[in-house]
Amino acid sequence: MEKVSISAGKLKGISRLVDREGKFRMLAIDQRGSLQKMLADATGKDKSSIGYADMTMAKRLVTSVLSSYFSATLMDPEFGVPESLKYLSKNSALLLATEKSGTESAGYKGREKKTHLLEGWSVEKIKKVGADAVKLLLYYRPDSTLEIKEYQENIVKSLGQECKKYDLPFVLEPVGYAFKDDEPSTDSSEYAKKKPEIVIGIAREFSKKEYGVDILKLEFPVNLKFVKEFHKGYFDKKEREEVYSIKDAEDACREITKTSTVPWVILSAGVDIEEFVYNVKIASNNGASGFLAGRAVWKDFTAYYPNEDDMRAWLLTSGVENYMKIYEASKRATPYFEHKQFRSFASIMLEKAGEDWYKEY
Amino acid sequence: MEKVSISAGKLKGISRLVDREGKFRMLAIDQRGSLQKMLADATGKDKSSIGYADMTMAKRLVTSVLSSYFSATLMDPEFGVPESLKYLSKNSALLLATEKSGTESAGYKGREKKTHLLEGWSVEKIKKVGADAVKLLLYYRPDSTLEIKEYQENIVKSLGQECKKYDLPFVLEPVGYAFKDDEPSTDSSEYAKKKPEIVIGIAREFSKKEYGVDILKLEFPVNLKFVKEFHKGYFDKKEREEVYSIKDAEDACREITKTSTVPWVILSAGVDIEEFVYNVKIASNNGASGFLAGRAVWKDFTAYYPNEDDMRAWLLTSGVENYMKIYEASKRATPYFEHKQFRSFASIMLEKAGEDWYKEY
Repeated sequence: MEKVSISAGKLKGISRLVDREGKFRMLAIDQRGSLQKMLADATGKDKSSIGYADMTMAKRLVTSVLSSYFSATLMDPEFGVPESLKYLSKNSALLLATEKSGTESAGYKGREKKTHLLEGWSVEKIKKVGADAVKLLLYYRPDSTLEIKEYQENIVKSLGQECKKYDLPFVLEPVGYAFKDDEPSTDSSEYAKKKPEIVIGIAREFSKKEYGVDILKLEFPVNLKFVKEFHKGYFDKKEREEVYSIKDAEDACREITKTSTVPWVILSAGVDIEEFVYNVKIASNNGASGFLAGRAVWKDFTAYYPNEDDMRAWLLTSGVENYMKIYEASKRATPYFEHKQFRSFASIMLEKAGEDWYKEY
Repeated sequence: MEKVSISAGKLKGISRLVDREGKFRMLAIDQRGSLQKMLADATGKDKSSIGYADMTMAKRLVTSVLSSYFSATLMDPEFGVPESLKYLSKNSALLLATEKSGTESAGYKGREKKTHLLEGWSVEKIKKVGADAVKLLLYYRPDSTLEIKEYQENIVKSLGQECKKYDLPFVLEPVGYAFKDDEPSTDSSEYAKKKPEIVIGIAREFSKKEYGVDILKLEFPVNLKFVKEFHKGYFDKKEREEVYSIKDAEDACREITKTSTVPWVILSAGVDIEEFVYNVKIASNNGASGFLAGRAVWKDFTAYYPNEDDMRAWLLTSGVENYMKIYEASKRATPYFEHKQFRSFASIMLEKAGEDWYKEY
């Protein structure tokens, strides 16, 4: 059998990120700005009233209750690690975010976005903590202005090199956004029509070897709220234009699977759990290797803020229930080792195998 | 409550090494010289007839069948990692050995031992692989000649510093040996009488902060074959002098617990499973935090070499049974977080906690 080689650190990391089925069933609790806003909304206060202790408490609760269910947990270094690290379940791998929360407005009419890495933080430090993977959230449009495109691509390239140096898996999360004159918002039929092309274009771009990406964390390639079966307000009681069918969603997922040279997982982007279950199911049935789910899993617990007991109670019941739903929905996800990159578990071998590998490593 | 601070990497590593009970229930399959000898003995051939592929096959079998039972697995970089890494259970942490197999004869009448680190291998590389801890086997006598004592101690100190730099837990395994004129062998009543003092002296020495040790992997402090209850050949049909009682064994374990400033675990040193179960039980009931068990768990599978199917069948049945026995025997082991170093789970906090920890880390 033909062998596929991989470095020791990348293999160790990827093996940790998946569950016993070889599928990525991962939890994201690295939200910063969006979590702050949710906690503020729960009390009707201003965002600035939510302080450091509120943020760390919320993250600690999610990690301590939910991490044992998920094959891996994504944290941020600012509000996550200090209080949550000791509550991370032994069986949940650790991913750490590299980007600064928020983006810089730039480019076309100041509507494009530049990503910045968090200052004072690095892949070297992520490795030092003992994390299993590095994650970068990147706002990106394949059709943005050249300046912004290159700027964003260069961040990915340099982070890819760092991940190679420290032999850590690199999880890239490139997310599209609306910025053109004919795109009122991402929740518009104009943007919905472009979404499959944007997400597939993203998968194509960051599949290139020069970026050094190991796992792509992608948006669902259509907006289900504009799908024939759901456009009449099925998810949020708001009627929208009919832009596509379920079959278009399936086709787009299959196109990503065909295009991506690395395993891909689906992100939740703040949609409600019901919609996310459809996302996970359609993606998993069409080649995705699992999910990295954030707000869809836990967001409703913020409604109980600042009552810690009630927040915990919600996570222990509805939070766990949400995990169960997306676990079920991802039953047909492709194990990482069956992805075309690896072909099969039996094919995988260390890059520097043999008697002297450790001298050359 | 008073807090106890620990660095992020050490906390992450230690949390991974233990099981859900907070106890170290670890497997060692980093044997090199001794495994080669066992495989040779099984076929009646010379040690040199056992090649690289034989060694890697044996290690791969143990890792793939048994690692899922143990909270962590100790491998060597030479014969272990290249073939076994992908078979390591996701839920078993990874420890990697640093020493070269065997020792250099030196010191008093050439009977003392000098340890050498494996050339071309380093703590930096152990970190790069993504391992959770570093292990060093060190032959050591608190009462050896000054030259050898200092030489051995310096190795520990420099490795301790490397582990601090790369923020990895350091598991030190200091093992006594016979070298004085009045010590025919470790299996003599003369050595048996000294053993408690040697092991307790070792615990005292390497508890000093300057070594940077996080976990001590220790020999059982008496030789049970010389205990009143067992000396008439209970374990191996060979009668020996009565040197001590079970109570002496318990007292010696309690003395280690009192002396050691870090959690300690018991090693198996090639004794049979029956004797090891007593070791684990007495140690666990008197302050040990678990075990790092090697040959006692798997050694009899070598009798089936080179028949891979039979070797695997033995591991799947008797190997698993041996795990169950020592799991039971370690029921009263002290969780790492209840060790006096940490006091309680609630006391543990990151060394650099607070909003800016990641900048200073």
